[in-house]
Amino acid sequence: MSIITLTTDYGLKDHFVGSLKGKILTEFTEATIIDISHNIDAFNIAETSYIIGAAYSSFPKGTVHLIGVDIERNRETQHIAMQWNDQYFICADNGVLSILTQKIIPQKIVAINIHDRLHSDATDLDVFVKVACHLAKGGLLNVIGKEITSVKDVTELQATVLDNQIKGNVIYIDHYGNVVTNISKNLFLEIGKGRPYEIKFKTKTIKTILPNYSDIVISDKYSIKDYEGEKLAIFNEAGFLEIALFRSNPETVGTANTLLGLNYRDTILIEFKN
Amino acid sequence: MSIITLTTDYGLKDHFVGSLKGKILTEFTEATIIDISHNIDAFNIAETSYIIGAAYSSFPKGTVHLIGVDIERNRETQHIAMQWNDQYFICADNGVLSILTQKIIPQKIVAINIHDRLHSDATDLDVFVKVACHLAKGGLLNVIGKEITSVKDVTELQATVLDNQIKGNVIYIDHYGNVVTNISKNLFLEIGKGRPYEIKFKTKTIKTILPNYSDIVISDKYSIKDYEGEKLAIFNEAGFLEIALFRSNPETVGTANTLLGLNYRDTILIEFKN
Amino acid sequence: MSIITLTTDYGLKDHFVGSLKGKILTEFTEATIIDISHNIDAFNIAETSYIIGAAYSSFPKGTVHLIGVDIERNRETQHIAMQWNDQYFICADNGVLSILTQKIIPQKIVAINIHDRLHSDATDLDVFVKVACHLAKGGLLNVIGKEITSVKDVTELQATVLDNQIKGNVIYIDHYGNVVTNISKNLFLEIGKGRPYEIKFKTKTIKTILPNYSDIVISDKYSIKDYEGEKLAIFNEAGFLEIALFRSNPETVGTANTLLGLNYRDTILIEFKN
Repeated sequence: MSIITLTTDYGLKDHFVGSLKGKILTEFTEATIIDISHNIDAFNIAETSYIIGAAYSSFPKGTVHLIGVDIERNRETQHIAMQWNDQYFICADNGVLSILTQKIIPQKIVAINIHDRLHSDATDLDVFVKVACHLAKGGLLNVIGKEITSVKDVTELQATVLDNQIKGNVIYIDHYGNVVTNISKNLFLEIGKGRPYEIKFKTKTIKTILPNYSDIVISDKYSIKDYEGEKLAIFNEAGFLEIALFRSNPETVGTANTLLGLNYRDTILIEFKN
Repeated sequence: MSIITLTTDYGLKDHFVGSLKGKILTEFTEATIIDISHNIDAFNIAETSYIIGAAYSSFPKGTVHLIGVDIERNRETQHIAMQWNDQYFICADNGVLSILTQKIIPQKIVAINIHDRLHSDATDLDVFVKVACHLAKGGLLNVIGKEITSVKDVTELQATVLDNQIKGNVIYIDHYGNVVTNISKNLFLEIGKGRPYEIKFKTKTIKTILPNYSDIVISDKYSIKDYEGEKLAIFNEAGFLEIALFRSNPETVGTANTLLGLNYRDTILIEFKN
Repeated sequence: MSIITLTTDYGLKDHFVGSLKGKILTEFTEATIIDISHNIDAFNIAETSYIIGAAYSSFPKGTVHLIGVDIERNRETQHIAMQWNDQYFICADNGVLSILTQKIIPQKIVAINIHDRLHSDATDLDVFVKVACHLAKGGLLNVIGKEITSVKDVTELQATVLDNQIKGNVIYIDHYGNVVTNISKNLFLEIGKGRPYEIKFKTKTIKTILPNYSDIVISDKYSIKDYEGEKLAIFNEAGFLEIALFRSNPETVGTANTLLGLNYRDTILIEFKN
């Protein structure tokens, strides 16, 4: 099987996503194409990086991820392809791989250099399609680019550590209005070393990170419905600290985003006690 | 062919749907994955039940339907898999199968009991993926659960009969603003026995249920365009009574929902005459 | 490979798209189904025509395009299937093929006449599914219809020429708020014959059509970010003149649609100089 995933800011109204798939199938009939998201905010690198970082681990080795956000090649930005964790990522070198490369060192990165080999009116996306199909067929990175040693990093995606405190930010608000921060479980374990802690944001405090959403239900005296709307903290499947309301609903009971007033880039602190 | 359909409230912005597909393909490379809807209102059981009940008949025997709405397993709700009409349905026992089980008796239902056989941080969704792939490969229900005899029923999805009257409710409003009720064609035929009838809602009355939308056009004297916006009643493809405006458009001429003021849960009466 | 593409106004909330795919797979297991768009404005023929005209060239020969917009067969409109540019298009004869047939002469058109051969409660869509699968399997047009010589044309989709001037209109506004006109590159080259020109709309003038979006960046003195929001004209991938803002974003910096005030049907002039 040869999976090519797509992550773009193309939206789902225009023909762009359908055309992209047509081009891939024209080049490589047997490709299995999977949409990750086409509703990334236009040109939003932080959001794209989070989505890719949250999705990759569900895919098998050899999967090729085509990232179609802010892909224009220009004097400041080249096209790259990265082998990482036995998967492949094709994108512009605009910082979109930051969350991945902060986690594990890439196996190999190349600056794509096949542009002159394509027909003269080939677009940036045509280049990505060519590279994605080449890799999905089992082709080598060396054939389509020249090795480089690092990719652009976006520092706003990193939490910072000061004394007994981790300072993070909201980097993503999901479909349920849950608020995702850039504080990873790994960083929390490394800095916290098992000490007690308080999570602080706005005027609120949370003292426990739950293993599962439903662990908010601590007493048999109440029904599960009675806990709807309670605030909680959890490490989500992507490995990042998330602030949520139990069974939140943007259209009825409200969400962490709307009710707690937590927005993109807002600060979240974790204070550890000695 | 092994089809696995997906019906969730995950939305299309986050990585959730893409990750779910990645997990399925990792487990079962040959699966054909079809989206039914990912835009169910968060945790809305009635809406999910309607969508599943409207979609299943378009799929071949052996199709596996994974229903990812309100799936958290807890002390009140177990995970189940049902064989019904030679298809399979995997969900939490939260009432989501009501519209199906009110129509035909299930062939077999099991309470899923493989949770302890998965790795320790497996999520509820991981369990569903495992079961869906097992069934799509032709595996047996007995292997993944213990037989049970009934599923939770949601009574709000049932129309009621009183004397010469069927009393139903709006259970779904579709993309065109058409209003779907819980009054089935079967119930209408059974109670009506061919008698004349009036459909009443708000201050309006409709006296004929049309075979097709276009049957609103009854005279050659007018063009089809002249009938745009006329109210009509029809049994939709899912077999439920629907109140619609001919060629309605939420953004221009308005819809049954906006112009007739029919909302979720509003009452619709059918009165039969002796 | 047998590709069937789908373009509809069904939206993505209801079960309609999933059901359509289920019907296709029931009829033809090996079909590769690709979504072009399901978010066409309800019953909008001009928009559908543009989307199809923009998408087809990315697909291989033999691709079957099922167009599910305004498909009801009635006394004014028949169902048709067209072979064009070695691809197939199935739709109602409502003008939706205008942009294609203005460009290249169709190879063959038939009025579909299989309606009586299907089961009695077959819908218009069931007919399209049957025809699409027949063609995707390599079946002949003659088997499913009677040859006709022309299709309905929608003149609002055509730009007009007067003396040294091309007068066009906005026919589509894309996901980025870029404004697409009905002025094709071919018409521009044919009428302009290399002469200088000015593009005029509202109170604005643009004097150059760029080869690529990034060609707005003409000086090394400024960073690329400094050009965000600059207005520009380009022939887009579909071959039509597009007015855009460089790196526009509907939610932040604004778009050609919002900032230049260009809306659906607004006039765009190109004046050539002698």
